[in-house]
Amino acid sequence: MRDLLTGDARDHALAPLTARGWTLEADGKAITRTYRFKGFPAALGFMVAAGTEAQKLDHHPEWTNVYNRVEVRLTTHSAGGLTDLDIRLADVMDSLAP
Amino acid sequence: MRDLLTGDARDHALAPLTARGWTLEADGKAITRTYRFKGFPAALGFMVAAGTEAQKLDHHPEWTNVYNRVEVRLTTHSAGGLTDLDIRLADVMDSLAP
Repeated sequence: MRDLLTGDARDHALAPLTARGWTLEADGKAITRTYRFKGFPAALGFMVAAGTEAQKLDHHPEWTNVYNRVEVRLTTHSAGGLTDLDIRLADVMDSLAP
Repeated sequence: MRDLLTGDARDHALAPLTARGWTLEADGKAITRTYRFKGFPAALGFMVAAGTEAQKLDHHPEWTNVYNRVEVRLTTHSAGGLTDLDIRLADVMDSLAP
């Protein structure tokens, strides 16, 4: 079981993510970000690259794709909220987006 | 502009799809299906294959992936409802799913 990020530790971990476009959901249990790409192939390519990294982490996003847009939601279901896995996956995804 | 499928023509086109698990939305403007796979890699692989075919058709799904599940919604925005493109993409997707 991963430790939940709460309080100051959560705020500290989230600061660089929110600066890059991530949003903490109202209940504090998940973060979301919408990526926009040049077109559908670029969006799909991002999902392949990010999905491959997610599989390596054994931690998977909830995500929706509509044409050039990919909406991502990250949470750690087994912990009931945010953990370091969500922060790591968000970092990886941001590194793969244009 | 693609012709909207309506009335008997729509019912006729949809019959084999609904038999395979597709559902017509209440307003008749879109169809949805949820695919389930053995795990995340299989779900992602399906999205790559189906997305590649969608790009060839220049017709794209709205779809959400959560772990081994892919929820697909098809509609033709430019026509304001269902057209033959949606039927073709649904057929292609079904041919790629296990």
